[in-house]
Amino acid sequence: MKAIGIYKNTSVDEANCFSEEQLDKPVAKGGDVLVQVKAVSVNPVDTKQRKMKEDDGNFRILGFDAAGIVEEVGEDVQGFKPGDEVFYAGSVARQGSNSEYQLVDHQVIAKKPSNLSFSDAAALPLTALTAWEAMFEKMHIPLDIEANKGKTILLINAAGGVGSIASQLAKLHGLHVVGTASREETEKWANQHGTEQTINHHKPLHQQLEALSIETVDYVFCMHQLDKAWDDIIEVIKPEGIIAAITGPVEGIKLTDLTSKSLTLVWEYMFTRTLHQTDSKYKQGEILTKVAQLLEEGRLRTTKAEELEGLTVENLQEAHKRLEEGSMIGKLVISV
Amino acid sequence: MKAIGIYKNTSVDEANCFSEEQLDKPVAKGGDVLVQVKAVSVNPVDTKQRKMKEDDGNFRILGFDAAGIVEEVGEDVQGFKPGDEVFYAGSVARQGSNSEYQLVDHQVIAKKPSNLSFSDAAALPLTALTAWEAMFEKMHIPLDIEANKGKTILLINAAGGVGSIASQLAKLHGLHVVGTASREETEKWANQHGTEQTINHHKPLHQQLEALSIETVDYVFCMHQLDKAWDDIIEVIKPEGIIAAITGPVEGIKLTDLTSKSLTLVWEYMFTRTLHQTDSKYKQGEILTKVAQLLEEGRLRTTKAEELEGLTVENLQEAHKRLEEGSMIGKLVISV
Repeated sequence: MKAIGIYKNTSVDEANCFSEEQLDKPVAKGGDVLVQVKAVSVNPVDTKQRKMKEDDGNFRILGFDAAGIVEEVGEDVQGFKPGDEVFYAGSVARQGSNSEYQLVDHQVIAKKPSNLSFSDAAALPLTALTAWEAMFEKMHIPLDIEANKGKTILLINAAGGVGSIASQLAKLHGLHVVGTASREETEKWANQHGTEQTINHHKPLHQQLEALSIETVDYVFCMHQLDKAWDDIIEVIKPEGIIAAITGPVEGIKLTDLTSKSLTLVWEYMFTRTLHQTDSKYKQGEILTKVAQLLEEGRLRTTKAEELEGLTVENLQEAHKRLEEGSMIGKLVISV
Repeated sequence: MKAIGIYKNTSVDEANCFSEEQLDKPVAKGGDVLVQVKAVSVNPVDTKQRKMKEDDGNFRILGFDAAGIVEEVGEDVQGFKPGDEVFYAGSVARQGSNSEYQLVDHQVIAKKPSNLSFSDAAALPLTALTAWEAMFEKMHIPLDIEANKGKTILLINAAGGVGSIASQLAKLHGLHVVGTASREETEKWANQHGTEQTINHHKPLHQQLEALSIETVDYVFCMHQLDKAWDDIIEVIKPEGIIAAITGPVEGIKLTDLTSKSLTLVWEYMFTRTLHQTDSKYKQGEILTKVAQLLEEGRLRTTKAEELEGLTVENLQEAHKRLEEGSMIGKLVISV
């Protein structure tokens, strides 16, 4: 099978950033399913993993988000059979999805929403899991719409990959969603994906919220440059409020800022469950199943913004380059 | 009425650390009750407030924990009448309890447990509110005993004021309670107040927990020197675990330590609700009412370790001196 990866930490500006290899097709054993990958999407974790690669001679296949068709199942797999269309974010502890076939733990996958193409579905798993785990598990935002009435969440970077699905999920569950965006096109995208009011993260947030008659917010979900947003967050969050973060930098953040208002700082890393093989990892399959249902019901929409055709070294390099530029809107998908 | 307080930041080693004044007895208006104070207890917040006092000529009465008898009630007070015996922690934004009479918001007080003396009751409000809010609100530990079966909480400084009631509340709600203590007498005290197993916070915690066949803990509640305990906490906490803190120092704490395990850091400051006048402040009255009931049922016991007789400048100075030495066991109470 064809697989694209790296042997060592490479720069996205190098000519041979990625290599293509022919590898043996893996065999599904135990709780694994073997998936024929039909589409993948890229996330900031892809570039972070690329930069972390040790020069140990091993070939590392990156890529985590994927949608595809189950080819075979291990003897302990329940709920999936060959031919099933699935989507998932997999695990950073294993070989990735930038490959014709991939092994993945059946507990962290779900049936692909039947009304979405492989490409539209591949845009979602990693970001939807991140948004769901952050908001409905770690921030303890109720799934009950009535309980969230009158509550406001501020999404820092609402038009990014996680922002585009977090905003939809938050709105769907009754929260008032204010998101930050700094360009006309990101503002428009955010408004199309659940964000009800946008403000600009390059300007002080407090005054902009006041102009919207919002004195304080109940929750802040920061998806971009936590250190830069920190002072604004501390200013606008309610006493006893909850801040979730998925990315740093964190140097220079003063934890004493949490004290007077008794604030909570939640860290969400979607790969914790597979990396540490927690008892709770099966919940990722459950969350993706719920997300698939919401997509089928038309209550969520894909966050795919762009699609590159063909899993090639050129397309992967282009995708990583776009991620590193940091101005991505929604999700970039590569069809296999 | 007699009141003891300070005009400016004073050292506990000065001869006239506190002054005694004769003040007019205040009048209860609105939602306030006027309480005849019968006993107070001291907490680290007392010494912090003393050290923060500005030299502005105003007389500041410190002391927050108190038990006493309602003398009169404001026109908006519901649920309390003159003669009721009450206990409370009050507010740092108002004059304190080191006084013959004190005004306090009726929303943050509760009826004193009928089976406890004023002194035994005065030991509890601030620490019980801190422990309850930290564990059952901010850490989202269920109040359902069955749901907590098999879960472990690690209490750093189990024999301190908050530790002595947090341990009892945690055990009562089905958690396995491991606490740190470093002296024979603190270990004994901790074991008498809900801590089931003790380890020494001057030695690496991981090995000591392993010796107890505990690989990781679900919750850590740190009540002493967060910076010193931090590396140990990060090592022993489960992925997706929750850390609560009530005190620093926080300088030098690396927030990146939260990321791989997706950890949550909760800050608990019991005075947030009264300081910021949150909509939720009435919950402090509710929590104290529940705590009083558990005390009356004999399911909790007072954490009073020692009592000084008489609200005098000498006794207050002695109490502050003990607090600043940092080796306090349980609570020190002063009867009025």
